[in-house]
Amino acid sequence: MKFIESKQNPLFKQWLKLNTRKARKQSKTFIVDGLRIVEHALESGLIETIVMSESYHQKVAFTFDVQVYVVPDQHFKLLIETENPQGILGIVKEPELPLKSGKILYLDGIQDPGNMGTLIRTADAAGFSGVVLRSGCTDPFNQKALRSSMGSILSIPLILNDDLSYLRNCNTKIYAAALENGVNYRHINYPDESVLIIGNEGNGISDEVLELADQRIYIPMIGAVESLNASIAGGILMFEMQKSCT
Amino acid sequence: MKFIESKQNPLFKQWLKLNTRKARKQSKTFIVDGLRIVEHALESGLIETIVMSESYHQKVAFTFDVQVYVVPDQHFKLLIETENPQGILGIVKEPELPLKSGKILYLDGIQDPGNMGTLIRTADAAGFSGVVLRSGCTDPFNQKALRSSMGSILSIPLILNDDLSYLRNCNTKIYAAALENGVNYRHINYPDESVLIIGNEGNGISDEVLELADQRIYIPMIGAVESLNASIAGGILMFEMQKSCT
Repeated sequence: MKFIESKQNPLFKQWLKLNTRKARKQSKTFIVDGLRIVEHALESGLIETIVMSESYHQKVAFTFDVQVYVVPDQHFKLLIETENPQGILGIVKEPELPLKSGKILYLDGIQDPGNMGTLIRTADAAGFSGVVLRSGCTDPFNQKALRSSMGSILSIPLILNDDLSYLRNCNTKIYAAALENGVNYRHINYPDESVLIIGNEGNGISDEVLELADQRIYIPMIGAVESLNASIAGGILMFEMQKSCT
Repeated sequence: MKFIESKQNPLFKQWLKLNTRKARKQSKTFIVDGLRIVEHALESGLIETIVMSESYHQKVAFTFDVQVYVVPDQHFKLLIETENPQGILGIVKEPELPLKSGKILYLDGIQDPGNMGTLIRTADAAGFSGVVLRSGCTDPFNQKALRSSMGSILSIPLILNDDLSYLRNCNTKIYAAALENGVNYRHINYPDESVLIIGNEGNGISDEVLELADQRIYIPMIGAVESLNASIAGGILMFEMQKSCT
């Protein structure tokens, strides 16, 4: 255990920078917040460093196989975006899990970090093989998205795909969730290998992505509502696609 | 149109108080944010007053059948919890829509305002007849919940029920979403009149509510995930319960 007193400490400054997407991308590391996800990251072998607040360190008697730093409570708070952080965080390497064949969730322009994390968590729960993120999506490694993902980000393969190469090279059936010109999502037998595309919260799927889809699907709505929240639509569709398994 | 210059104006002070649950409860009014939901509230006849920021008022040429007040931009911001408000809000009466028979969503201890709003929006989209909220739930009329509900709060009957009387007097089949001792949610034919109970994000449904359920149901999960987000689980179950209609 090492104690870091000053905010000017180079390591501390480096951690603080991880609150920006740019620094996360360059270093391929990010911060996970709270004991539960820290333990999860330890199991995955992805953790580089653990940081604790002073008062948290005084309360607990854990030992870890990685370097632990302790910082004053008021400095710790700068590293975490929640108001009342637990007092333990991990600096974690981006997992690089290979995408296996199976059902894939493809996200096009998801902007809300809560939706991002929830969609990743739900894809994991539905037994999807991975999630592909087109550029334009919010960063899955920001703290809000990570909290909503409840650790799934460490266990399900996640591919950041800048162009449309993934969809273009995809030999499996591609389904796009769209409000218009689609088939009722319940009237389809989804093959074991298929892709589900979910689009932006306000504008849906962009035209160039929609063009690559084999089939548009929609969820019929009864009330006066115009649309479903993106992660709700994703959840309903993913669990329908896995029907044969459940 | 009337211009209110001072934050000390009694009307302005009254609006400001509507950011507390207590004042909303006492006055049975709440604030809706943005033109779209203001128009929706106008159609429902529920709106009492419209308030605009000065710069919004200069840009637009709408006329409304209710009293419009204009306040300086910096005062307007105090009334709205989002960082960049559009500049128009409505003071709206709590709708008192009667609960009809059909499928009902019963919420027990939902704490996250985003989940609250999303569950109400999804219940509306799935054609549920209403939502019953047990005390202990977060306020559905706070601004975050209202934003997530996308206006559904004005169209679907919402009953705040302090004790368990609703469930006790309920003659229809009651299903509780629970992780243990349940039946696969797909293996049930849900009758036209039935209740779905969704519980707290961390702790699930409380014991006294669970006791009143006729059947526990669960969503089988494949990945390493322990549970689904409460509003995702609610969405999947509500659309399954409405299968016969879609």
